[in-house]
Amino acid sequence: MNNKSASPKAGKVIRCKAAICRIPGKPLVIEEIEVEPPKAWEIRIKILCTSLCHSDVTFWKSSTDLPKLPLPVIFGHEAVGVVESVGEYVEEVKERDLVLPIFHRDCGECRDCKSSKSNTCSKFGRGYRPNMPRDGTSRFRELKGDVIHHFLNISSFTEYSVVDITHVVKITPHIPLGIACLLSCGVSTGVGAAWKVAGVEVGSTVAIFGLGAVGLAVAEGARLNRASKIIGVDINPEKFEIGKKFGITDFINPATCGDKTVSQVIKEMTDGGADYCFECIGLTSVMNDAFNSSREGWGKTVILGVEMHGSPISLNSIEILKGRSVCGTYFGGLKPRSDIATLAQKYLDKELNLGEFITHEVSFHDINKAFDLLLEGKSLRCIIWMDKLI
Amino acid sequence: MNNKSASPKAGKVIRCKAAICRIPGKPLVIEEIEVEPPKAWEIRIKILCTSLCHSDVTFWKSSTDLPKLPLPVIFGHEAVGVVESVGEYVEEVKERDLVLPIFHRDCGECRDCKSSKSNTCSKFGRGYRPNMPRDGTSRFRELKGDVIHHFLNISSFTEYSVVDITHVVKITPHIPLGIACLLSCGVSTGVGAAWKVAGVEVGSTVAIFGLGAVGLAVAEGARLNRASKIIGVDINPEKFEIGKKFGITDFINPATCGDKTVSQVIKEMTDGGADYCFECIGLTSVMNDAFNSSREGWGKTVILGVEMHGSPISLNSIEILKGRSVCGTYFGGLKPRSDIATLAQKYLDKELNLGEFITHEVSFHDINKAFDLLLEGKSLRCIIWMDKLI
Repeated sequence: MNNKSASPKAGKVIRCKAAICRIPGKPLVIEEIEVEPPKAWEIRIKILCTSLCHSDVTFWKSSTDLPKLPLPVIFGHEAVGVVESVGEYVEEVKERDLVLPIFHRDCGECRDCKSSKSNTCSKFGRGYRPNMPRDGTSRFRELKGDVIHHFLNISSFTEYSVVDITHVVKITPHIPLGIACLLSCGVSTGVGAAWKVAGVEVGSTVAIFGLGAVGLAVAEGARLNRASKIIGVDINPEKFEIGKKFGITDFINPATCGDKTVSQVIKEMTDGGADYCFECIGLTSVMNDAFNSSREGWGKTVILGVEMHGSPISLNSIEILKGRSVCGTYFGGLKPRSDIATLAQKYLDKELNLGEFITHEVSFHDINKAFDLLLEGKSLRCIIWMDKLI
Repeated sequence: MNNKSASPKAGKVIRCKAAICRIPGKPLVIEEIEVEPPKAWEIRIKILCTSLCHSDVTFWKSSTDLPKLPLPVIFGHEAVGVVESVGEYVEEVKERDLVLPIFHRDCGECRDCKSSKSNTCSKFGRGYRPNMPRDGTSRFRELKGDVIHHFLNISSFTEYSVVDITHVVKITPHIPLGIACLLSCGVSTGVGAAWKVAGVEVGSTVAIFGLGAVGLAVAEGARLNRASKIIGVDINPEKFEIGKKFGITDFINPATCGDKTVSQVIKEMTDGGADYCFECIGLTSVMNDAFNSSREGWGKTVILGVEMHGSPISLNSIEILKGRSVCGTYFGGLKPRSDIATLAQKYLDKELNLGEFITHEVSFHDINKAFDLLLEGKSLRCIIWMDKLI
């Protein structure tokens, strides 16, 4: 083993290109920036490819409303990269390892990480941080010296990024890079929600509200667990054809239900309600629809969508007494250190169908096209290649 | 085995005394009534003792608001009795068996009853029925011939009652009658919620909102499962001394929390929130307090209280994403046919402390005293003896 540093830049500032957001909702601007070397328990990653998740778009559109999200900022949190250099005390990975940065922390040491019941690491306390989690400072600088902020502990819309070791997992080099990138956030979230949070069983019925990449990944997880009926609910009728590729067996367009509510239609289709309902949009009215579509006795509603304005979920207090439950989850209840490798293996074993999620690919200099495609509902995932010219 | 009928009244109408409610909220009146013999799949029970549950009082006070609860009615659903006679096709019990009538049905045959995940029998469909579940008629008559209605499929405030076989379980004659009576509803509900619904573990932390019999039974279930901290929340400070008998280790009176919310106090006491929170009152504001007192990562809130006016539960849609869950349950998630026997055995093995729930005993002719004691917050359970003069 060669433990000596192989990176000519190790310990030094790297100049590279990054896509910066200075004004919410406006196209990102690719600029040259400086990326500091990793401090203790940090690693610097050369990003190979990244993709755009709805959460990036949500923050990008509304970042003026979010006082904890200072500008300028480098968005992006779904990616795969190679370790360029490591800071002091880092033992988990070494230079040249292929890694996924993961916004959802897994320190492996706190009470939550040690428990099989939680995937909500409490290592650095709770709450959003706009910079590095340990010392609260940024590793990004403009050439004139001003700070650029991190996003969700990742910031992948840059050729190089620095992340804390608790936000990274190694990934097998046998997996295609674009597929690895998907496992970094949205697709893992959906598959995990079906597999770990709900525990969808053979022959069970599933209703999925919102057929974006996360909702379709829920379907893929439910298909893998051999659910008998997987109902997709979306106002875009084109989603049914797309959804069939991921196991969607039935489709409901709320706009064409006539006098019936979506919940009534689902109850008719499932003899009383679905065993598992998933909300993948982030609208409290849809969370309510999902709950009302769940079966008495054991119906479980899993909330994945993030309601950005703090509106509360409202549930009928008598209906919940009839054996229903509601739970929420980030990152599909997955523990990054152990569960990502399991999903990667399921892909390599040809059990998980992930290739269909990649609908588009662009070069980094065309990153704003990825925003357009997602905003227009045309893409599931657009892979943004840092080096490759598409 | 003597299969021949031993009851001289089998097949005939029985005249006996019952406590009738004709006007909501007014004292019950003991009158002579006629009880028809059981039809197919029904049994007639000689009630030995019964007790008053908060649900009786809730319906008694508000029955004018509940269109599905016709008057006159015989309340009461916690009881123990002896089988007087059985209708056609009844094989599960025979005359002279000691039985508990249970408001929560367990047919043993439907998809719910066959599943380990549900305790919500779907045999006769869903919804409240004011009479017998199979044919929708009553077995109670005034002497002048008018119908008197059943309540929660039981009606135990009468010397004889008729119940469907799906609403009855045999109970060991080794158990004292008063204790058996408790297992018929409230105490089983609380113990079951801690044991089966939450699955309270050794060393876990528990917060219980409302220290009536159900809340204290949750504490007793949590004590049995060796929770490390069992916090009781009640506006009546006397409940702390009572609660200590059932394992309550800490007490919070919301009226004396100063500037802090109950949730803040619980979070401080439990290093971030209780592992399991139980709402045992039926107020949506308290359901919200319970949810907010639950821990990130795996905090589970169990709703036991029945909110009679249909107000919705309101939950913070971001907080639930942090790994929290909420579920509701009737009868503590217990399946009467199998789980009641388990609880009875735990009592006989001196694991479950149930004797302390019986704070008062009265004769049937003093049944209205039981209402007064519960309304004044003086009793946990008042056993009402049908034959015995107290």
